[in-house]
Amino acid sequence: MDYVYAPGKNHLFVPGPVNIPEPVLRAMNRNNEDYRSPAVPALTKTLLEDVKKIFKSTAGTTFLIPTTGTGAWESALTNTLSPGDRIVSFLIGQFSLLWIDQQQRLNFNVDVVESDWGQGANLDVLESKLAADGGQTIKAICIVHNETATGVTNDLSKVRFLLDKYKHPALLLVDGVSSICALDFRMDEWGVDVALTGSQKALSLPTGLGIICASPKALEASKTSKSVKVFFDWKDYLKFYNLGTYWPYTPSIQLLYGLRAALDLLFEEGLDNVIARHSRLGKATRLAVEAWGLKNCTQKEEWFSDTVTAVLVPSYIDSAEIVRRAWKRYNLSLGLGLNKVAGKVFRIGHLGNLNELQLLGCLAGVEMILKDVGYPVKLGSGVAAASAYLQNNIPLIPSRI
Amino acid sequence: MDYVYAPGKNHLFVPGPVNIPEPVLRAMNRNNEDYRSPAVPALTKTLLEDVKKIFKSTAGTTFLIPTTGTGAWESALTNTLSPGDRIVSFLIGQFSLLWIDQQQRLNFNVDVVESDWGQGANLDVLESKLAADGGQTIKAICIVHNETATGVTNDLSKVRFLLDKYKHPALLLVDGVSSICALDFRMDEWGVDVALTGSQKALSLPTGLGIICASPKALEASKTSKSVKVFFDWKDYLKFYNLGTYWPYTPSIQLLYGLRAALDLLFEEGLDNVIARHSRLGKATRLAVEAWGLKNCTQKEEWFSDTVTAVLVPSYIDSAEIVRRAWKRYNLSLGLGLNKVAGKVFRIGHLGNLNELQLLGCLAGVEMILKDVGYPVKLGSGVAAASAYLQNNIPLIPSRI
Amino acid sequence: MDYVYAPGKNHLFVPGPVNIPEPVLRAMNRNNEDYRSPAVPALTKTLLEDVKKIFKSTAGTTFLIPTTGTGAWESALTNTLSPGDRIVSFLIGQFSLLWIDQQQRLNFNVDVVESDWGQGANLDVLESKLAADGGQTIKAICIVHNETATGVTNDLSKVRFLLDKYKHPALLLVDGVSSICALDFRMDEWGVDVALTGSQKALSLPTGLGIICASPKALEASKTSKSVKVFFDWKDYLKFYNLGTYWPYTPSIQLLYGLRAALDLLFEEGLDNVIARHSRLGKATRLAVEAWGLKNCTQKEEWFSDTVTAVLVPSYIDSAEIVRRAWKRYNLSLGLGLNKVAGKVFRIGHLGNLNELQLLGCLAGVEMILKDVGYPVKLGSGVAAASAYLQNNIPLIPSRI
Amino acid sequence: MDYVYAPGKNHLFVPGPVNIPEPVLRAMNRNNEDYRSPAVPALTKTLLEDVKKIFKSTAGTTFLIPTTGTGAWESALTNTLSPGDRIVSFLIGQFSLLWIDQQQRLNFNVDVVESDWGQGANLDVLESKLAADGGQTIKAICIVHNETATGVTNDLSKVRFLLDKYKHPALLLVDGVSSICALDFRMDEWGVDVALTGSQKALSLPTGLGIICASPKALEASKTSKSVKVFFDWKDYLKFYNLGTYWPYTPSIQLLYGLRAALDLLFEEGLDNVIARHSRLGKATRLAVEAWGLKNCTQKEEWFSDTVTAVLVPSYIDSAEIVRRAWKRYNLSLGLGLNKVAGKVFRIGHLGNLNELQLLGCLAGVEMILKDVGYPVKLGSGVAAASAYLQNNIPLIPSRI
Repeated sequence: MDYVYAPGKNHLFVPGPVNIPEPVLRAMNRNNEDYRSPAVPALTKTLLEDVKKIFKSTAGTTFLIPTTGTGAWESALTNTLSPGDRIVSFLIGQFSLLWIDQQQRLNFNVDVVESDWGQGANLDVLESKLAADGGQTIKAICIVHNETATGVTNDLSKVRFLLDKYKHPALLLVDGVSSICALDFRMDEWGVDVALTGSQKALSLPTGLGIICASPKALEASKTSKSVKVFFDWKDYLKFYNLGTYWPYTPSIQLLYGLRAALDLLFEEGLDNVIARHSRLGKATRLAVEAWGLKNCTQKEEWFSDTVTAVLVPSYIDSAEIVRRAWKRYNLSLGLGLNKVAGKVFRIGHLGNLNELQLLGCLAGVEMILKDVGYPVKLGSGVAAASAYLQNNIPLIPSRI
Repeated sequence: MDYVYAPGKNHLFVPGPVNIPEPVLRAMNRNNEDYRSPAVPALTKTLLEDVKKIFKSTAGTTFLIPTTGTGAWESALTNTLSPGDRIVSFLIGQFSLLWIDQQQRLNFNVDVVESDWGQGANLDVLESKLAADGGQTIKAICIVHNETATGVTNDLSKVRFLLDKYKHPALLLVDGVSSICALDFRMDEWGVDVALTGSQKALSLPTGLGIICASPKALEASKTSKSVKVFFDWKDYLKFYNLGTYWPYTPSIQLLYGLRAALDLLFEEGLDNVIARHSRLGKATRLAVEAWGLKNCTQKEEWFSDTVTAVLVPSYIDSAEIVRRAWKRYNLSLGLGLNKVAGKVFRIGHLGNLNELQLLGCLAGVEMILKDVGYPVKLGSGVAAASAYLQNNIPLIPSRI
Repeated sequence: MDYVYAPGKNHLFVPGPVNIPEPVLRAMNRNNEDYRSPAVPALTKTLLEDVKKIFKSTAGTTFLIPTTGTGAWESALTNTLSPGDRIVSFLIGQFSLLWIDQQQRLNFNVDVVESDWGQGANLDVLESKLAADGGQTIKAICIVHNETATGVTNDLSKVRFLLDKYKHPALLLVDGVSSICALDFRMDEWGVDVALTGSQKALSLPTGLGIICASPKALEASKTSKSVKVFFDWKDYLKFYNLGTYWPYTPSIQLLYGLRAALDLLFEEGLDNVIARHSRLGKATRLAVEAWGLKNCTQKEEWFSDTVTAVLVPSYIDSAEIVRRAWKRYNLSLGLGLNKVAGKVFRIGHLGNLNELQLLGCLAGVEMILKDVGYPVKLGSGVAAASAYLQNNIPLIPSRI
Repeated sequence: MDYVYAPGKNHLFVPGPVNIPEPVLRAMNRNNEDYRSPAVPALTKTLLEDVKKIFKSTAGTTFLIPTTGTGAWESALTNTLSPGDRIVSFLIGQFSLLWIDQQQRLNFNVDVVESDWGQGANLDVLESKLAADGGQTIKAICIVHNETATGVTNDLSKVRFLLDKYKHPALLLVDGVSSICALDFRMDEWGVDVALTGSQKALSLPTGLGIICASPKALEASKTSKSVKVFFDWKDYLKFYNLGTYWPYTPSIQLLYGLRAALDLLFEEGLDNVIARHSRLGKATRLAVEAWGLKNCTQKEEWFSDTVTAVLVPSYIDSAEIVRRAWKRYNLSLGLGLNKVAGKVFRIGHLGNLNELQLLGCLAGVEMILKDVGYPVKLGSGVAAASAYLQNNIPLIPSRI
């Protein structure tokens, strides 16, 4: 078996895939089952219902598609739009870039609004475009809630505010891959039309489920969409929902039970507590970065991400060497800088089923690596800054009080 | 947890998903990993190479796409063909029907050759179409190797023979979902251009990998295909193959290690021994059906499938009641009759990691159920017929001699 | 890894260790935990309480000792008796023999009552000994409830009847290793003083827990016992029970969670339903043996065991060859004949988390093996006889009605 | 299921049971098997042979007894000694105390040599006893290699030196429960006669195996030992070793495969590298303790333990509150102070499959807890001290260079 062993736990701090909690691993440790028996539809029904809660939606319809985030993107686009439709899409980092590439290859007319990498979506440009679009040629706004490459969180409520301000009917399609279940996200309140995530992100499952929530308006739009699709077609799902058998093709039994366990854990902790925990982890990480004398790739506080921190390194250091060294010497997995920020940035993912002491172990490791590569860090400084904040803010674990 | 408990093992005899062997469950029982570390590409490289062996191909290029068989179909079609292309496609049962539906929705020009359900692909009609196609308007032949709904195996070597006879350049696209790793399949020898299967079938994994092998000719065709696709686009894979990182988006770490284990087991048993085992299981099942005085849905011996047997029930019996009863009283999962043969047929899947005594337990169960629903079966008769054959033909287990 | 692979499931029909159900495997798939945290004592408390139910005891005190059945025997003896104490003990097969060997080596004065292997305990001799024991020199009766080597179940209620008849205060110590959780067992009603089983038997767990229930009278006796013991000393357990921390030394966290899951499954099925299932499996097996024209090692119907059937083979056959062949050709694990019945008997264990179709697969396998070794069996005959009975007697699975 | 959930990994830093690595969990995730089939003896043979390596013995005979460390103690004593035999035994903490209690209850004549808790075994007293024992009345020296309660490692080579100096034939019996596989241990070189450990300690398995190595001299002594024992009797094992079936009673199949995996990991890392890793972890922990301004319970450097550090707290702090708070707020499991040092000491276990970043996470947690309970620690100070040492001393992971 191809396995590059190292003693102790692997410290997994890429911004996905993330650590799977033991109860989820246990739930998935099972043989296949006939998905046409009465058991699997009964299970699926609870999942489709409960998964709405992570979107904070009651009006939405959910889809669990055996695919990745990339496939979920494709499903969101091809079900609601037709080739040639004008989309306003924000390019702010590698993942928004890839989504835009997909939008273009799917033959939409993509109106790209670009920002520097490290900045959020330029909503002023959006406003001017909306203001100018009396003819309502814009069919959708596509926006990444949290750009994983740069650690930038966009303000979705503001997008909704602008759409409402201009009474614009454009659909609001949101990539929540590295935000949903970790950051504050409000499908119904913010009038999001399609939101999506992947199972291997904040839900802390293996890769394999594209999880999508569609508003009534999105479902309505899907009836007239002319994009070609079969595998990703919501209609096939809706047909089987009506039949009560739920699956147009074979689901992964293991992921269904895994999702059940993951949702149970989320609800046991409380979604708001989960979000608060991510807020603590993000804040603590940023305090450490500051203590090290390094800069956050994210340029303004309003965009700081609580699920991933992209750290800029001095020009005399290759950030890829930091990532290599983390793996080779400390059994620590960090995120590379991608594309425009390759070599300049390394990333600490702090999302999913993760606690504060895990993060502090990671931060202690990063300090040693920084020293390894010649950066004059004061060892312990980041941990001290993070700890000072955390020691004041970590609550007691409710089940253990 | 939504779990409908029954004592003892579930006897899983649907034709997919199938039983997962313990070594594969063990291999998948693991946390996520950074797929950009050196370990995962190294593992992937061995998989892409070794998976060719199950296709009996050395010339092909393989893809492991995080999807199901339906997605693998879509990938095969959209990478090699352009909208409007003429396809000859054989409708012989529910799965070929669904593939044809997909072909039509993807805007190909589908020339459907229909047979009675229970018959194989009508290759005489294919021959006349090829003979008449001097202009080479047929771009591809799409054929299901083993129609899971009716238990019919088509003769692919004959399709190749006809294409060669008429020197026809059409691509040969094969759904091997319920055949590959279980029935004799020879990618290179038969000149198959795209073949595909799903992980949850004879490979005995969970659902989640569409496994595709493309001939050099298919790869060449993919360069000019005008079908719209992104998630299923081979080009994205080939780009990352060249980079040595292999993955355009996040794979399931668990399925990669699971596939490694599944291939190791296959090679330990020997692919030809695996095929011989399926041949024994198929033959034994058919002997039991005969002993019960029932008919095989498959109309001629030349089409008999060694991975699934569709059994016709007398008109006074609803085959769906057999399936329900199997689950409710015997913890046995059988396959329903689908579409045209709903109510008329139940199916015994005998593929994947399965041995003879498991099958005999299933056959003994079917006998009791037949009696339950009022069919005058002689209990023990099917088991006796199957055993008489098996006792003469089961080899010693090589590792235990 | 030392693993002798064979395709498909291993058919495990030795009378222990037995098949572990998936929910139990899942529950045990976990890291270690600090057993001095509040969680483990809380879990342990539920186990000690619930495990009484499998003994049908409310008055008893239970112990979960990290050991095997052999250790549980030793614990039962050394806690209640003193060296030199007179014990009446019944020798009826290999396991009662081993227990007697232990009793002798622990320096008790063992009054052995021997029967032919295949017969139950000679209770007439017991009666005469009790009648003659006006001086109450007999301190304990040691009896194996179900002799696993010969498939003999003793009548414990009769032992109690005799003790009561003669108003004899001897302790009643019962080996319930292959009976408890599978056969009717009534600790309190039958006045059993110590009963014990092992986790790998009808509870369907891995080996590693000796499970003991002691009556108040047994606990009282333990206060004056002079046998030397430390590891097996109940006093150490009772001390930690009082402290509320429960464990004098480190327990297996995995087995504790596994036992929790095993008990949950037992109670979900219903203990009486579990016993009824074993009754069906035993009866079906015996009908098959009869149909094959073979004899049960158990000489009278009153002693027939519902957890294991020892089958006598004709003198021209070596029963060990049947067991070897089962493993080498059919991936079937049968029990050897032991000691006096070595070569003459093979054993089919039918206890634990097992259902009827599993058993029928085993019986079909035995038929083929009998033919392999030259016995003129009619293939299918045993399965037919067993099925005829089962088809009339299997209830619907309650959770699936 | 009784499970006190908290987000993220549990940080398990008690000195046993310790973290189980994933490959070991995977190896144990399996059904039961017939231990009388040819597979299990073949596996056992490799284990008995390879397990000698962790003792650094070639001359020894090994036993894998289904029990805990307490049972392994009992096995060591009762197989080599007879009631009334004079033993010199060192009382230096809770575990040596418990062993002495066992020795006394087993009716040996225990000559207790007591030290202050925090000191090592008083070998000067040993020397005077040996010098005075011309009559060779001392039959065995019993010594705990690493006292887990106080973090004290004794110098075994010196014990051997003294025995040799006085040409004394006493057996040397060593509790290596928290040392073997983690600290330097040399069975043959040091002339140890019986050494033992438990699976849940440095081997990083679940509880359930008492692992014993006996020298030829110990085996010889076992032939004349008059202690009463059955379950723990080596003779029964040796009888089955000779038969090639190895097991006098049912082993845990899961633990056998788990031990195979654990040994494979140990040998892959290299036993000397494992010991060096523990040396780093121990040193780093002590540097942190010093930086916090706290004292080690261990009174002299020569006794410092590399597997557990017992930290003395100021008198105004209850160390039990530190342990409670660790669990309740930080999901961190620390060791309590036991018996004489209850309330005064908390313990950090750093043994088994553990790496440096895990330890640093723990140390960061301890700092926050110290602050929580009112100790004026400088946050980050311990981590800084430990990191400064580790960053200079951690080697590259060999498999990843």
